[in-house]
Amino acid sequence: MKLYGDHRSGNCYKVLLTAALLGIELTWVDIDIMSGGTQTAAFLRLNPLGKIPLLQVDNQTRLSESNAIVNYLAYQSALIPQSRLHWAQVQQWQFFEQYSHEPYIAVARFIQLYLGLPVSRMQEYKEKQAGGHKALAVMEQHLQQNEFLVNQQLSVADVSLFAYTHVADEGGFDLSPYPAILAWLDRIRALPQFVAMTK
Amino acid sequence: MKLYGDHRSGNCYKVLLTAALLGIELTWVDIDIMSGGTQTAAFLRLNPLGKIPLLQVDNQTRLSESNAIVNYLAYQSALIPQSRLHWAQVQQWQFFEQYSHEPYIAVARFIQLYLGLPVSRMQEYKEKQAGGHKALAVMEQHLQQNEFLVNQQLSVADVSLFAYTHVADEGGFDLSPYPAILAWLDRIRALPQFVAMTK
Ligand SMILES: N[C@@H](CCC(=O)N[C@@H](CS)C(=O)NCC(=O)O)C(=O)O
Ligand SMILES: N[C@@H](CCC(=O)N[C@@H](CS)C(=O)NCC(=O)O)C(=O)O
Repeated sequence: MKLYGDHRSGNCYKVLLTAALLGIELTWVDIDIMSGGTQTAAFLRLNPLGKIPLLQVDNQTRLSESNAIVNYLAYQSALIPQSRLHWAQVQQWQFFEQYSHEPYIAVARFIQLYLGLPVSRMQEYKEKQAGGHKALAVMEQHLQQNEFLVNQQLSVADVSLFAYTHVADEGGFDLSPYPAILAWLDRIRALPQFVAMTK
Repeated sequence: MKLYGDHRSGNCYKVLLTAALLGIELTWVDIDIMSGGTQTAAFLRLNPLGKIPLLQVDNQTRLSESNAIVNYLAYQSALIPQSRLHWAQVQQWQFFEQYSHEPYIAVARFIQLYLGLPVSRMQEYKEKQAGGHKALAVMEQHLQQNEFLVNQQLSVADVSLFAYTHVADEGGFDLSPYPAILAWLDRIRALPQFVAMTK
């Protein structure tokens, strides 16, 4: 399957990491966000929302939204728990990621790493810090008592949240006040099939 | 099961509508956002993120994130398609809702309906309009060719997106340029077990 993505994007990296953990081969098609690659007429025909990652499932079918792609790849694998409650808890963490984590941490990182902290975005950058730390505090509290986010075992919830948490420093977030998060990041990095983000 | 919620919240209404469509009984516990009900020490012990809806699954277990709660209630029901691809497409729409729809339409509605359009939030309110119309345009394009969001049949994707779309006017969004969305809203309102939002 073909994946349209940008190597510095955590949303795209989620998909790569899932594929690596499951031994699924993906053909990478590079889309450069910064030069407008997601906003060309050709790309908008593939995804009207103009966003990556985008998975080409077959000739007719494409899937967008990083966490939906991750869950599609992981369908009926060990990365998705079988119990109704645990599966719902996995989704709870993934929706938390999209609503309360990524919009702060990934956006702060975008302003810092991609844009180089322009003065025009400094106010927004500062506002993102509070929301990001709130999300990190919720994770820290949970990980103080849990090895992984759901049911003490690795799942797509960990993959989805690893993506931007492990590069949060690139958005100005110091993780040293979050020892349980740091230990959890190390547990994920130590997985035999782990692949790092290539930047 | 007990549901902590606020009657004007679309995120809470998603859960009510799902329960009604499935004939599940929920005991409603009123939490008033405007008087700080989600930020009390007692509520933060239930949900450290301080957000509703929150489902009390059993004595020990609570589930947050509206779409995760909806999917938990609808587990193995007709509202969740069985095929791998269709289920992923349902999730695609739900993640779209949380990332590209709710943060614009629900927040604009909050500023207008709950706060009464204070001058201090007018700039933000105006910025929310563009993002909201972008999300509506993506839905309109899709619904021009589809009766429901996924696989021509009602699913939790429709419920999740109905919630804030049907009250988008309360956030300043005129839906008359979106006839396919209006027809889809009517199809949902016509469902035999439909329940309206109580405000
Ligand atoms: N909710 C989406 C967010 C995707 C997203 O924001 N992608 C960014 C890159 S990380 C993008 O495509 N930006 C380019 C654009 O919006 O034009 C997901 O999880 O996939
Ligand atoms: N991503 C969450 C969003 C929940 C949310 O933002 N809830 C609002 C009411 S609609 C809330 O609890 N606000 C009060 C607060 O943040 O203190 C979901 O889908 O459940």
